[in-house]
Amino acid sequence: MNKIKAAIVGYGNIGHFVLEALQEAPDFEIAGVVRRNISNIPAELTPYKVTTDIKDLGKVDVAILCTPTREVEKYAEVYLAQGINTVDSYDIHSSIADLRNNLNAVAQKHGTVAIISAGWDPGSDSVVRTLLQAAAPKGLTYTNFGPGMSMGHTVCVKSKPGVKNALSMTIPLGTGIHRRMVYVELEEGAKLEDVTKAVKEDPYFASDETHVIAVNSVDEVKDMGHGVNMVRKGVSGKTQNQRFEFNMSINNPALTAQILVGVARASMLQKPGAYTMIEIPVIDLLPGDREELIRHLV
Amino acid sequence: MNKIKAAIVGYGNIGHFVLEALQEAPDFEIAGVVRRNISNIPAELTPYKVTTDIKDLGKVDVAILCTPTREVEKYAEVYLAQGINTVDSYDIHSSIADLRNNLNAVAQKHGTVAIISAGWDPGSDSVVRTLLQAAAPKGLTYTNFGPGMSMGHTVCVKSKPGVKNALSMTIPLGTGIHRRMVYVELEEGAKLEDVTKAVKEDPYFASDETHVIAVNSVDEVKDMGHGVNMVRKGVSGKTQNQRFEFNMSINNPALTAQILVGVARASMLQKPGAYTMIEIPVIDLLPGDREELIRHLV
Repeated sequence: MNKIKAAIVGYGNIGHFVLEALQEAPDFEIAGVVRRNISNIPAELTPYKVTTDIKDLGKVDVAILCTPTREVEKYAEVYLAQGINTVDSYDIHSSIADLRNNLNAVAQKHGTVAIISAGWDPGSDSVVRTLLQAAAPKGLTYTNFGPGMSMGHTVCVKSKPGVKNALSMTIPLGTGIHRRMVYVELEEGAKLEDVTKAVKEDPYFASDETHVIAVNSVDEVKDMGHGVNMVRKGVSGKTQNQRFEFNMSINNPALTAQILVGVARASMLQKPGAYTMIEIPVIDLLPGDREELIRHLV
Repeated sequence: MNKIKAAIVGYGNIGHFVLEALQEAPDFEIAGVVRRNISNIPAELTPYKVTTDIKDLGKVDVAILCTPTREVEKYAEVYLAQGINTVDSYDIHSSIADLRNNLNAVAQKHGTVAIISAGWDPGSDSVVRTLLQAAAPKGLTYTNFGPGMSMGHTVCVKSKPGVKNALSMTIPLGTGIHRRMVYVELEEGAKLEDVTKAVKEDPYFASDETHVIAVNSVDEVKDMGHGVNMVRKGVSGKTQNQRFEFNMSINNPALTAQILVGVARASMLQKPGAYTMIEIPVIDLLPGDREELIRHLV
């Protein structure tokens, strides 16, 4: 079997868990890791090539982008043009469709595939949301998150001037309403009110109730467990009160990483272009013989 | 907009709810209904053509097969060869892959599309099962059904000699183990022990604890509510104890019918061949502008 050659681009939380998921995947080979800074290499990366330029890794089939979400587009454009598929977990819901349109043009031009916004939300939750919409076309779906750490929101807070370390917790208030509890370690001389203003004005936080709290140590309050409770009550045909519920209690970066590995696999089976997860068959996420999968899963 | 011309084939419980789902769908036109016997037409069908031969209905894009599950293959083979897509909710899990292989050959030969086993289980549950397998590749998924009426099992019991009317209830015992409670109205002279033997020997029932009970009136104990509780505990990458749960409480034939209408729509977008639901993108189940759907659902 020809294994799929994957590069990990960015080695923070998600990158670390992608490494573990790739090590467990039967059909992948780890081509190497791309980092901005290769001076300080963690022990678990010693068996692998670590470089600042993906071209040093030889043939790469797919780049798994584990960079901050705002850097996804830049990396994807470059790699797609180099003939490398890309997958990411871009999580700014309001601009997913635009990212898809842009990367779709690049990917089609260069005969490559991008699968975007593939984590758990956006990602696997999007698949469930779409399926429930099909099962009961009229009605309301509420996606309630947490309590748990939001990776994207945390990275966003860390990027603000004056912030040394941060943790953004998502607290479900029901019917899809959430509170953001943001814990920050401030740099010397930084003012909490300035950080609070910068956080609250960011599109990530602008529409949610947000509280910013200074703490001495973010590490002491950090836990990467997370959860979701998605509910839909709707109408199938003319029949009311069809009820659906999807719950998860998970390690957040571990699940995101596993989904990224699944879509990296799926990227090898799509026609050139850019896709969200709701546009690809779920069977493509899995390794192994398709007829066997159908016998076991359908 | 060119509406999709759909024929309903078979007009029992499922056919009735498919009619309602088609009436509510913005992108379908009801070409008519195919029945073996057209002497006794229900009032709600008076606005529609009812015939014994689909050729009387003019152009049909897709035939929604609402026949007993064991007749699905026969109808699908004929229609696919006539240039008509077919969708069905074939529910004998052990032979789904074989049905797919057979219809795939017919469909590819005639440039048509079959989407098989598209109800809620097999069907939408299969999509969730596959997604959870991708989210946590190692682990166990248990699908617990009911309490509720099983359509397929009930039709199966009704087909046994000596049975005037029947109801097969599925009772969840946990970890995917179910009891079958079968309520039968016997024909005059029929013996319960003969019916019990015939039921228990059928592949539908052979592997489950089954009790067959004679009642005076099946109608008095019948309710078409049903449910599912699917749980998976598994490993994402190397991270244990990832927990997922999917629950539904639904009107059984109404949900099956709605899913059938979704896959009828999706059949118009696939390349010739036969598919199960895990092989088609979930977005294809929905009407409307794809970019709008992506903006709302991803």
